[in-house]
Parts: sequence; structure tokens; C-alpha cells
Amino acid sequence: MTERDGAPAPVGRAMLQQCLQARLQVKPAEERSEAEFVQIDRGMVIYICFFKGATDDILPKMVSTLLNLRLCESDSGKMVSVLELPGSILIVPQATLGGKAKGRAMQYHNNIGKEDGLRLYGAFVSLCEKELAAASAEVTVKHGTYGNRQVLKMDTNGPYTHLMDF
Amino acid sequence: MTERDGAPAPVGRAMLQQCLQARLQVKPAEERSEAEFVQIDRGMVIYICFFKGATDDILPKMVSTLLNLRLCESDSGKMVSVLELPGSILIVPQATLGGKAKGRAMQYHNNIGKEDGLRLYGAFVSLCEKELAAASAEVTVKHGTYGNRQVLKMDTNGPYTHLMDF
Repeated sequence: MTERDGAPAPVGRAMLQQCLQARLQVKPAEERSEAEFVQIDRGMVIYICFFKGATDDILPKMVSTLLNLRLCESDSGKMVSVLELPGSILIVPQATLGGKAKGRAMQYHNNIGKEDGLRLYGAFVSLCEKELAAASAEVTVKHGTYGNRQVLKMDTNGPYTHLMDF
Repeated sequence: MTERDGAPAPVGRAMLQQCLQARLQVKPAEERSEAEFVQIDRGMVIYICFFKGATDDILPKMVSTLLNLRLCESDSGKMVSVLELPGSILIVPQATLGGKAKGRAMQYHNNIGKEDGLRLYGAFVSLCEKELAAASAEVTVKHGTYGNRQVLKMDTNGPYTHLMDF
């Protein structure tokens, strides 16, 4: 990762991919229980990572930007936001997005601590749920479990991967 | 995207995801022919985007970094490179990775022109093929068609999404 000195470091990073269907494990299989999954159909997968210095103040801007940017292709081929589509959202905590290469290994020194990360992640999910519920009753927000392995399966008609730093 | 002035702008961006299986359409269905796909099993999906100013000089460093970074989890849980795994590689051209938000729309003004982008993409793929062939005969490099819609389906045991600017 090239250093970008001279401007404030980002406090949050989101990676966005469009999906036709996406399924995420939220509870691994255990001796007496099967694995549990959440699933969305058409919509957007949001991979999210917070850096040191992130506070709740950044969340409204992040959520508003991600949900209102015209990143989704409508049936008519026009670019619309996920709220306008309307599409569902799958939120995936993804600490690896904050990694920097050091030699052949990845380091995550800029990532936020686990406790603050968990709290911000929960608040980010709640805010997305609130915004999406206000936009349409047909769509849903699903999300992964913070700290877990994110066993993900997805089917796209072109992921149109976008990166967004905040 | 927060501006990072004061340091040279990146000329290439890669997004990496681990997969158990990934399938990509390389030719859409036409009136007289079915769609064509390429597929890899365990390995890494490399989404790649070049910016204005990128030249062939950057390619050896990009490929060497991406293929030698310890991003993959071996069967024993140890982090190893895709060459060491050894895993296959699916390369997906992804111009959207170069997008910047302007109001509610995405703009791609920093992306390289189509002709140069196609040439660099081809050279990037060739270099990956050469490196992987030297490492193991069991694995393979597959890649998408530059300029096409990248209809992608993937199955992961955790994508471990990493971002790398060059």
C-alpha cells in the first residue's frame, strides 16, 4: 500500500460489490448444531473496516454515502442507488481491508481495537437497517458476526467493485 | 474517497479475495452460442485496475508482491502465499476500483485509457501465468475479458479481502 502522507488518514474503509444473491455464515457448525447462515437476493455486499481514531461521528456520513451513491444497475440499465433499486444489503466485517504489506506479511496496526470496532460495527448495521426500512419494505439488511470467519458465497451479474475511504 | 495529496498517486490497484471456487463468464451468450466461463478451485481472485500514468515498469513489482504476500491460509492454518499454497488465480479486470464519488455519481477520471489498459492487463496476466507455471504444475491462471461485464460467482471460506495500491 502506497503511503498517502499529507492528508488525514482514513478512519473507515468500505468495499462494495453488487450481487444477485449472497449467503454468509453467521454461526459455524458445532458438535450439536449445524452452521447458520443469512442470505440476501439482489443488492449490495458492504465489506467494512474501521481504523484507529474512528468514532460514531463518521457513521451517518458513511451510511448516507454508501446507500445513496448510484452504484447499482436497474433493470433498465440506469445507475441507481441501493435505496432506489431497491436492493438488500449484506454487511460483512472485514478487518483485512485495513492491512498493509510489511515484507511478505500483512500487518493491521492501523485497525481499530476489537471493543471499539465491535461497537462501531453494531451502530453501522443499525443505521443501515434504519435507512433501508425507511426506503422500502421489500428489502432487508443482513450482516455477519464481528470477529468471526466470514464464510461467504456470492453470485453476481458483475460485482462492480468499488472502494470508499472515509 | 478521501484525497491523499502530497504523495504520488497510485498507478495500479488490486483487490484480493481468497476463494474455494470462483467462476467467471468470459463470453456472454449470443443467439447461436452459449455463454463461456472459466473456473478455478482453491486460490485467489485478483481484481485489477490501472490508473493514468501506469507503465509496464510497474508490472513485475505488482505481480511479485501479489503472488508472494502471505494472504492464503494453508490446511494447517499457517499463512502462506498463493505460490506456496499452491493455489490457482482468477484475474478480473475491474475498472470500477478506480472510481471516486462526485456527489451521488461515481467518476473514473483517473483510470487509464482503454488501449493502454488492455495492453497492461494482458501483460499482467502473462506475467502471472509465467510465475505460477514456474511454481507448480497443479495450479492455473484464468482471467476475464477486458472491457466485458465480469459475471462472477464465488464460494469462499472467508474472502479475507485485501487492498493493495502500487
